[in-house]
Amino acid sequence: MSASPTKILVAQGGGPTAVINQSLVGVVLEARRHRGIDLVYGARHGVRGIVNEDFVDLTQETSHNLELVAGTPAAALGSTRDKPDLAYCQEIFKVLQAHGIRHFFNIGGNDSSDTTRIVADEARRAGYALRCLHIPKTIDNDLVLNDHTPGFPSAARFVAQAFAGANLDNAALPGVYVGVVMGRHAGFLTAASALGKKFPDDGPHLIYVPERVFELDRFLADVKATHERHGRCVIAVSEGIHDASGRPIAAQLAKDLEQDAHGNVQLSGSGALADLLCQEIKSRLGIKRVRGDTFGYLQRSFVGCVSDVDAREAREVGEKAVQFAMWGDRDGSVAIKRTGFYSADYELLRLEAVAGKTRTMDDAFIAPSGTDVTDAFRLYLRPLLGSGMPDAFRLRPAPVPKVLGRA
Amino acid sequence: MSASPTKILVAQGGGPTAVINQSLVGVVLEARRHRGIDLVYGARHGVRGIVNEDFVDLTQETSHNLELVAGTPAAALGSTRDKPDLAYCQEIFKVLQAHGIRHFFNIGGNDSSDTTRIVADEARRAGYALRCLHIPKTIDNDLVLNDHTPGFPSAARFVAQAFAGANLDNAALPGVYVGVVMGRHAGFLTAASALGKKFPDDGPHLIYVPERVFELDRFLADVKATHERHGRCVIAVSEGIHDASGRPIAAQLAKDLEQDAHGNVQLSGSGALADLLCQEIKSRLGIKRVRGDTFGYLQRSFVGCVSDVDAREAREVGEKAVQFAMWGDRDGSVAIKRTGFYSADYELLRLEAVAGKTRTMDDAFIAPSGTDVTDAFRLYLRPLLGSGMPDAFRLRPAPVPKVLGRA
Repeated sequence: MSASPTKILVAQGGGPTAVINQSLVGVVLEARRHRGIDLVYGARHGVRGIVNEDFVDLTQETSHNLELVAGTPAAALGSTRDKPDLAYCQEIFKVLQAHGIRHFFNIGGNDSSDTTRIVADEARRAGYALRCLHIPKTIDNDLVLNDHTPGFPSAARFVAQAFAGANLDNAALPGVYVGVVMGRHAGFLTAASALGKKFPDDGPHLIYVPERVFELDRFLADVKATHERHGRCVIAVSEGIHDASGRPIAAQLAKDLEQDAHGNVQLSGSGALADLLCQEIKSRLGIKRVRGDTFGYLQRSFVGCVSDVDAREAREVGEKAVQFAMWGDRDGSVAIKRTGFYSADYELLRLEAVAGKTRTMDDAFIAPSGTDVTDAFRLYLRPLLGSGMPDAFRLRPAPVPKVLGRA
Repeated sequence: MSASPTKILVAQGGGPTAVINQSLVGVVLEARRHRGIDLVYGARHGVRGIVNEDFVDLTQETSHNLELVAGTPAAALGSTRDKPDLAYCQEIFKVLQAHGIRHFFNIGGNDSSDTTRIVADEARRAGYALRCLHIPKTIDNDLVLNDHTPGFPSAARFVAQAFAGANLDNAALPGVYVGVVMGRHAGFLTAASALGKKFPDDGPHLIYVPERVFELDRFLADVKATHERHGRCVIAVSEGIHDASGRPIAAQLAKDLEQDAHGNVQLSGSGALADLLCQEIKSRLGIKRVRGDTFGYLQRSFVGCVSDVDAREAREVGEKAVQFAMWGDRDGSVAIKRTGFYSADYELLRLEAVAGKTRTMDDAFIAPSGTDVTDAFRLYLRPLLGSGMPDAFRLRPAPVPKVLGRA
C-alpha cells in the first residue's frame, strides 16, 4: 500500500429495506477485488455520519460476516432522514476531501440521488477527482427510468403474502378488512396486494392508490357493492390516498401533524387512516364486523420475507456501481433494466436524470375502475416476487343435503 | 357401506391460525383409515353451520388437495365467533342426531371446548351414543393443562421475526418503536417478541404483558431510561394491558366500544392503543421519532410464516382425536404434553378440565422487573418456533480516526 491509499466511501440513506445490505456488501466485496482500491470506509447513519466523520473501516470485516450481513434486513451502517441542502453537501464534500476519498457510493432513494448529484457538482467545481455513484433503493419503487428498484420486490412480496392471508382470514370470519400499505405518491406497493389473489372471488376486492383521487362516498359505494356481492370485502389502501386538492386523507384527521426534514407529513407509524376508514364503513354502511390493519414497519423490515430476485439484484447494483466507477470513470445512478421475462441488466444513468424526480404508476397498470390493477401490472410484478411464493388452496364444494331443512 | 353409514363431523371455531387446517386434515385423513367410519362431514363456519345443517362431504375430497389445504392458513371450513348457550347446544345436538353423526370433532379454543362439553352432556342425557372431541387451537396459548396449543408457535414465530426486523429498523433509524401484539388475558404471544433478540442491546427492550398491571407513569419512566441508555427503544405491548382495576388501557380511549357475543370489548383491528402510547411518549418525554405498529391480523394469518413443529403437532392432535375416539371410546380434549427437549406426546383430558378456563403466563416466565421474560420462558418457547428461523448479523466495529475532528 502506498503512502496515500486510495479510499472509497459507502453510505446508506432513507428507509431501510430487506435487501439494502446486499448492495452495501456488493460494493465492499467488489471494491476489494479492484487493485485500485486500498480501503473501503462506511459512513455510520448516512450523510450525517459523513459530516460527523463517523466512519468504519469495512476492509477489516471478514467476507464471511459480510455475507451474513448481506442477508440481514435494515441498514447495517445505520441510516438517516437528513436531506442535505447545498451547505450540508459542501460539508460532505469537505470531509470526503479531508479523508482523501476518491469514490463515494450512496445507497438510497430520491433524496440520496439528489445529495449524490450536489456532492458531485461540488467536487467538479473544486477540481477534486471524486466519482459519485448513486445506488438505487426504495420500497416505493418510485425512481424514474428504473424498471424497478431494489427493496420494492421484497416489500411487495410481504404485502402480497399479507393480503393472501388476510383474504383467507376474512373468508373464514366474513366482514370488511382494510389494510393500509406504505406509499406516499406511488401506489406500486399497495397494488402488489393484487398478487395475493388466486381465485376470482379472493380479495383484495378493492385497491386504492395515490395515482387516483380518493372520494369517500365512492369508496363507501364500492365497499357496499362488494360486500353485497361476496358477503365480505378485503380492501388495500395506500397511506398516500388524497382528495382532489391533493390533501392526504390521513392528514384530514391527524391532530398533530408531524413533518420530517423533507416537509412531508408523517403517514406511517400510526393506525389513524385505517381506523378512520373502518369507522366510516361501520357508521355509514351499518356493517358490524369491520377490521383495519396498518402494515407499518413490518412491510419493510420483517425478517424472513425476501424475494431471491430482489436479493440478487440488490447485490448486483452494488457490484455494478463499483465497476462503473472503476472502469467507466463516470458519475451516475445505477438502474435496473429488464431484458427478458425474466432477466435484468444494469445501466448507469446521469444523476440529473434521476435526482429528485418521482415515478408513479403508469396508467396501463391501473384498471379503468380505478380500484384494481391490470394484467400488465401482474406480468410486470410477478417475476420480481421471486421463487417459493406460498400458495393458498381451498376445499372443493361437496354440499350434504339437509335433513331438517329448517334454516 | 351399510344402509346407515357411520358419520363423523368436524368443525372449526374462533380465530383462524396458520395451522388449524392441519388439524382438520389430520381428522379427515385419519378417519378415512378407520373401517368404522364411512362418511366425514365438515360444518361450514363452525357451530353456526351445524345448526344451519350447512355441511360438506369431506370424504369426496382428494387426499392430495387435502394436503395442500393443510398447508394453507386460516380455516378452510370457515369459522364463527358464536358462543353457543345451552339452547344453541341443544340445537347442535338435534342436528347431529338427525344426521346420524356418531363422532363430533370440534377444533377451537376455550369457547369451543365449552361447546363440546355441553353437547356431550346433551347426548348423554338423551342416551344417544355420541363421542365429542375437542381439538385445541389458539394463538393465545391460553388452554389450561396444555404445554402449548397449536397455532401459538407459528404466531409466536411471526412476532419474533417481526420484532427482530423492527429492532434492526429502529437501530438504523433510532427512535422509539411500539409494537402491539394480540392477547387479551395471556401474554405468551407478546412475550414471544423476546425471541427476536440476539445481541444484548437488541430490542425489544421492554415487554408489557396482561399478567402485570400497566401503569402509564412507570411505563414512561421505563421508556425514558431505555432511550437514554441505548439512544433508542423498542417496546412490545399486549393489546390486553390493563390498569389495577382490570380495565383495558385500550378501552380507556375507544369511544365506541364494540363487544362480541362473549361480551369482550374489541381490542384487535384498531391501531388506537399503539397511537395512544406513542402520543404519550411524544408529548410527555419530548422524544421526536416515535412510531407505533399494531400487528393485527397479520400475526395470525400471514401466509408464509409457519413453524414446522407447530404444523406437525397441529396435524397430530387431529389424528390423535380420531384415534382416541375410535379406540378409547371417550369424550375429551386432546392436549400436548412435552416429553423431551424437544419432543411431544398427546393425552386426552376431561372436557370439564379444560372448558371455559383460561391459562396465563407462569410467574416463572416473567422477569421480576415485569418488563422482560426469563430464561425459563426462552427455553420453553425456542423449540416450538421450529427450524429455519432467520438470523440477524451486524458489522463488527472498526472505527476510522477522525481527520477534521470538529464534531
